[in-house]
Amino acid sequence: MKPIGLAILLFATSCYAQEPSDFHPAATNVWGAEYPRVDGTGRVQVRVKAPDATKVRLNFWSGPKLDMEKQADGFWTITTPPLVPGLHYYTLIIDGAEVSDTNSVAFFGGGKYTSMVEVPEAGSTYYSIQDVAHGQVREIWYNSKVTGTWRHALVYLPPNYDTQANVRYPVLYLQHGGGEDETGWIRQGHANFILDNLIAAGNCKTMILVMAYGYARRAGQAPPDLTGKPFGSPEVMKAMQDMTAAFEDDVTQVLIPYIDSTFRTFPDRDHRAMAGLSMGGMQTFQITLNHLDLFSYIGGFSGAGGMLVLRNRKLDPKTDYNVVFADPAGFAKKVHLLWLGVGMQEPERMRSGILRLHESLQEAKIQHVFYESPGTDHEWQTWRRDLKDFAARLFDNGKTK
Amino acid sequence: MKPIGLAILLFATSCYAQEPSDFHPAATNVWGAEYPRVDGTGRVQVRVKAPDATKVRLNFWSGPKLDMEKQADGFWTITTPPLVPGLHYYTLIIDGAEVSDTNSVAFFGGGKYTSMVEVPEAGSTYYSIQDVAHGQVREIWYNSKVTGTWRHALVYLPPNYDTQANVRYPVLYLQHGGGEDETGWIRQGHANFILDNLIAAGNCKTMILVMAYGYARRAGQAPPDLTGKPFGSPEVMKAMQDMTAAFEDDVTQVLIPYIDSTFRTFPDRDHRAMAGLSMGGMQTFQITLNHLDLFSYIGGFSGAGGMLVLRNRKLDPKTDYNVVFADPAGFAKKVHLLWLGVGMQEPERMRSGILRLHESLQEAKIQHVFYESPGTDHEWQTWRRDLKDFAARLFDNGKTK
Repeated sequence: MKPIGLAILLFATSCYAQEPSDFHPAATNVWGAEYPRVDGTGRVQVRVKAPDATKVRLNFWSGPKLDMEKQADGFWTITTPPLVPGLHYYTLIIDGAEVSDTNSVAFFGGGKYTSMVEVPEAGSTYYSIQDVAHGQVREIWYNSKVTGTWRHALVYLPPNYDTQANVRYPVLYLQHGGGEDETGWIRQGHANFILDNLIAAGNCKTMILVMAYGYARRAGQAPPDLTGKPFGSPEVMKAMQDMTAAFEDDVTQVLIPYIDSTFRTFPDRDHRAMAGLSMGGMQTFQITLNHLDLFSYIGGFSGAGGMLVLRNRKLDPKTDYNVVFADPAGFAKKVHLLWLGVGMQEPERMRSGILRLHESLQEAKIQHVFYESPGTDHEWQTWRRDLKDFAARLFDNGKTK
Repeated sequence: MKPIGLAILLFATSCYAQEPSDFHPAATNVWGAEYPRVDGTGRVQVRVKAPDATKVRLNFWSGPKLDMEKQADGFWTITTPPLVPGLHYYTLIIDGAEVSDTNSVAFFGGGKYTSMVEVPEAGSTYYSIQDVAHGQVREIWYNSKVTGTWRHALVYLPPNYDTQANVRYPVLYLQHGGGEDETGWIRQGHANFILDNLIAAGNCKTMILVMAYGYARRAGQAPPDLTGKPFGSPEVMKAMQDMTAAFEDDVTQVLIPYIDSTFRTFPDRDHRAMAGLSMGGMQTFQITLNHLDLFSYIGGFSGAGGMLVLRNRKLDPKTDYNVVFADPAGFAKKVHLLWLGVGMQEPERMRSGILRLHESLQEAKIQHVFYESPGTDHEWQTWRRDLKDFAARLFDNGKTK
């Protein structure tokens, strides 16, 4: 009868006595979990039961790493300094084992399901559910001849897609970061609510979002043996390029035709955009700039020009990216929007790399938008803001905004 | 640049040297995770890094609970005895902290995101993705006046729903168990693939599935204070009844009208079924038997007649369930299918409770189907089999099968 008992447990755990403070359970908690808790200043309290452990550490990936304190009841607790608003990945390190906090909803990041805590941004409603018309997120499975596997993707269809059976829509392909997956833009990013709210306010065109799984290996290809190869080594760089090339073929040869034949899209370059965050930004630049016949709107969120950033060098318009940046007038005619963004608190190497790309593009006289997110790191609050700004500029000839 | 590095990590972790055995990474692992591994006999190998722990236990919820063995490299390992085929919840207990294994996809069960391992069933393809036409799973949000909250549900629409714009479909409402949520029937149960495969083979009617979130509390109602109240106490029983009653109102007053106005359903009792597992089976019996004006097909998977099972007593047709069982002929006229199932290896109290209900129904001359799943416990393999059998009997006047 355990499962029935467990339902009761959910009730019971929501009955802890409240301390007199403005700490509240985080929105990212599972139902009934009192911890983590967040206060109005952004401080976070975490609590975990580990009665026999000798050391428990709280490990925010882009934030504080703190030893927790053991209490007499076998629970370990800690209160962090104030964190910037947004959604923060964290893990617990219990006697050397890095695990997720089971009080949290599990989000896919870092190649595993991990815990996150949402620190609210005062006054921001653009990424939460509002009483407006909602689109629907659909799960699709498509059989890829490139990878030889069934691949899972999420598709956001805007409000009234079902009822306006003669209307066609433009499409934004929206990619997750490294270590994340096709669910990230909905679960972490709230891309569906961002679009619902933008559309309801008349601040963006009604569009379809397609969120694909960004890892790929060609059918029959063995995984690369990277044992002992450091990040940045030629072998690792080649593995990344192989993966991106396989993903490029999957997107351009399989996914786009599948989407255009399954949903009511405008199946042409003027109505097709791509953007991605971090690794997804790197992929977006490669895929779109290799296929300007397919895309006319391009967004790099904390990852534009990834290979240049990784290699720590400037853009060379005469050699890089199929030489598309060598002819500013021709580029401006073809590409309706080129958009770069980065958080002001991102790690120096990322921030300076994107800034260098921005300056290179200015020198090359390539028209583009450059957006810096105040106060935010290489995290989802940056990318929610990016999407809000980017989506509003799409499919209306970006230059008018 | 960590997230880019993490993508590489995913590559690297798929390069461990393979031991010469038939152990393979479980289908439930995250991409690239070599452990847990399963062999042809159903044995499972689990491996976790916990270099500073003094005790690590592997805890299958319906299966072995074993101390793991510490290796010189800081990893703990164990091989289980053979497990029955199916999907098994497990946790790791690291120095007293019960956590999920981050090598596994996280499934919502036990009121938290937890790890599972899939032990394949030789020759069974009915619950895996096949090269047939696929339906789509959609996420919907509806605003419930009963709970005063936005509620999330999943809806499976069958193949060709979009292209056959004049076709209407019957609906099966399908509920998760206690501690699980609206995602369970897709993530754990593979209900979408089960339906795809049944439909492709012509073994069931084309239908819509609706999977709702089974917890509910009335708007403005405070959570019950169950501190110190044991499972089975009057206070806990009342809390369960209050929750089920709120859920009943949500389903009958909000969800069903929302579904019937959003999707192309046949909005009548002859084309509406409900089934659920464990707690969901208990809810199904209460909701359907209180609303025979709305439902005509009823399925209880390891949870039929939940309150009777909990109270350890026989069905009394003269007092229980609105007295619907007092008139067998009238009941048979109204209810096209009453279906009960239980796994042969379920805990004695559950098994004997369902068996007692089956016998009570026989005594009361109530026509029904009783199915026992060979070899399986209070787990998802039982419920996958239940759904396969139950769905095949729907919307065709169940008695003809």
